[in-house]
Amino acid sequence: MSEFSLIDHYFKHLTASRADVSTGIGDDAAVVQVPLGKELLVSTDVLNIGVHFPLETSPFDIGYKSLAVNLSDMAAMGAVPCWVTLSLSLPEENADWLEGFSRGFAQLANQHQVQLIGGDTTKGPLSISVTIMGLADKGRARLRSAAKPGDLIAITGSIGDAALGLDCLLNDLDMSEEDRSFCISRLNQPTPRVSVSGLLAPYVNAMIDISDGLVADLQHILDESHCGAVLYVEKLPLSSAGQQYIRQTQDWVRMLSGGDDYELCFSFAKENLHDIEAIAQQMNLALTVIGYIESEPHMQLLLNGEAYTAARKGYDHFGA
Amino acid sequence: MSEFSLIDHYFKHLTASRADVSTGIGDDAAVVQVPLGKELLVSTDVLNIGVHFPLETSPFDIGYKSLAVNLSDMAAMGAVPCWVTLSLSLPEENADWLEGFSRGFAQLANQHQVQLIGGDTTKGPLSISVTIMGLADKGRARLRSAAKPGDLIAITGSIGDAALGLDCLLNDLDMSEEDRSFCISRLNQPTPRVSVSGLLAPYVNAMIDISDGLVADLQHILDESHCGAVLYVEKLPLSSAGQQYIRQTQDWVRMLSGGDDYELCFSFAKENLHDIEAIAQQMNLALTVIGYIESEPHMQLLLNGEAYTAARKGYDHFGA
Repeated sequence: MSEFSLIDHYFKHLTASRADVSTGIGDDAAVVQVPLGKELLVSTDVLNIGVHFPLETSPFDIGYKSLAVNLSDMAAMGAVPCWVTLSLSLPEENADWLEGFSRGFAQLANQHQVQLIGGDTTKGPLSISVTIMGLADKGRARLRSAAKPGDLIAITGSIGDAALGLDCLLNDLDMSEEDRSFCISRLNQPTPRVSVSGLLAPYVNAMIDISDGLVADLQHILDESHCGAVLYVEKLPLSSAGQQYIRQTQDWVRMLSGGDDYELCFSFAKENLHDIEAIAQQMNLALTVIGYIESEPHMQLLLNGEAYTAARKGYDHFGA
Repeated sequence: MSEFSLIDHYFKHLTASRADVSTGIGDDAAVVQVPLGKELLVSTDVLNIGVHFPLETSPFDIGYKSLAVNLSDMAAMGAVPCWVTLSLSLPEENADWLEGFSRGFAQLANQHQVQLIGGDTTKGPLSISVTIMGLADKGRARLRSAAKPGDLIAITGSIGDAALGLDCLLNDLDMSEEDRSFCISRLNQPTPRVSVSGLLAPYVNAMIDISDGLVADLQHILDESHCGAVLYVEKLPLSSAGQQYIRQTQDWVRMLSGGDDYELCFSFAKENLHDIEAIAQQMNLALTVIGYIESEPHMQLLLNGEAYTAARKGYDHFGA
């Protein structure tokens, strides 16, 4: 099968079909319509085998996660994801692999009404690059630079699970079968917080998704907002697997620095707390206040009232 | 240097700074403004070392060409390129390589007032994926599907040069030093036909850029337009290097099927010929009529009035 028909065959009709796509896959470029009053958001992520997921990750999970991390970027901006392009380098044309990958990719795309509008496939070591485009009301995208001293800091869901999942796969972490399977699914099929993001956006100042680890990603907000923060480490929302791990190890560093959870971390004015708690209830999703923003530009970690300094940096591909 | 600062350091301030970019590199997504009355065009291409360019290609040329092929996609739609994202897999952080690559990329970006608004760098085998976004007046993008029987077919510039350039590099083709250097520069630094495309668009029906070879790319127009074509092979516009090659070899197949020239191929109503010739003169660029569209759905090649059937297919990454 040729390169042209590869995309057609495996992807063309798999994802949502949107009314605002005038021309989809199959021309030199796709043509889409941006409504009046909206601004366009664009983000791009590349995933490589052996770097972003272990070699034995299933093609379905790779397809799913390739899109999930990009959807998460839209969620972090308070934007509605609309269109994606997919660049795929493959060592060989492997029908089983492509079928699994495209099913994982499409499942999440359809769930979020996102349409694949372009792509390119080439021969090469496995590498996946996705560019996502979304829309937000003009001036309403939630930036990292908008945190204000006095803001509370909250995160969605629980953190540290994906890092534990990776440990299970690589180091055979001691854990119950149920916790193990939960953590691995958090690693391989993270839930991009798109729906809750849309509800939160009007009440939020700065927002980011946790891809590199809580401390590293919160630091991006602090850097861009020229602020500092106080974090109450014992307040970090943990799954039952995470709680069990902390009971055994007291290793909070894992929770503070583990990446790949794709939960949202955001700051908001205290007076919005009530509205934000109502959203949490409505969505049946934990939203946990873990600290606050302050003007002094550094991050202070407190564990049960004591300074806690052991936090490792987030994952950095070219770091030391 | 960390992954975050890699993009900042080498790319952030290199490309054009556009007034319609509200948020550029450095947040979870970029935010840009699409003016009323315009539609958004999106295209993506991936380039791998050893597949799209020989191993010894200079980083400057790789950077230049990565953007050129994407600009060419915008030209093929009659669109104005505006914003790009760049995904880069690199085996290691190599300052010399990155410096050269980013200079090549930026030179062309600045020439076309295109701003880099996002990117991702990861460790892995060298692979470059660029997504380009551009604008066209609503309903005015030039599609492959718009060719009409009776249309003339024309191409910009000359074709076959990039294929000869690749032959020079791989097979040490017998050629004068001047021709050799011209053909290699056509291969490594193709000129995306963005300016002429904007002038041509109002007079053109179907348009495509020649990336896989004239026959293969024209066939895309014919397939999408449900038409056929007659091509006069001897009319193909050749550079002096191409003319010399034909004199020596009579190998028209090289010209018909060689990819990577990034010239435009377009169809237009006969009555627009005069306007199109005026554009050619204004731009000081050859625009050569090489055949016409007919309703019968096949492509007929004529060489000096005789049927010519030896044309190879365009380059296909997963083809036989």
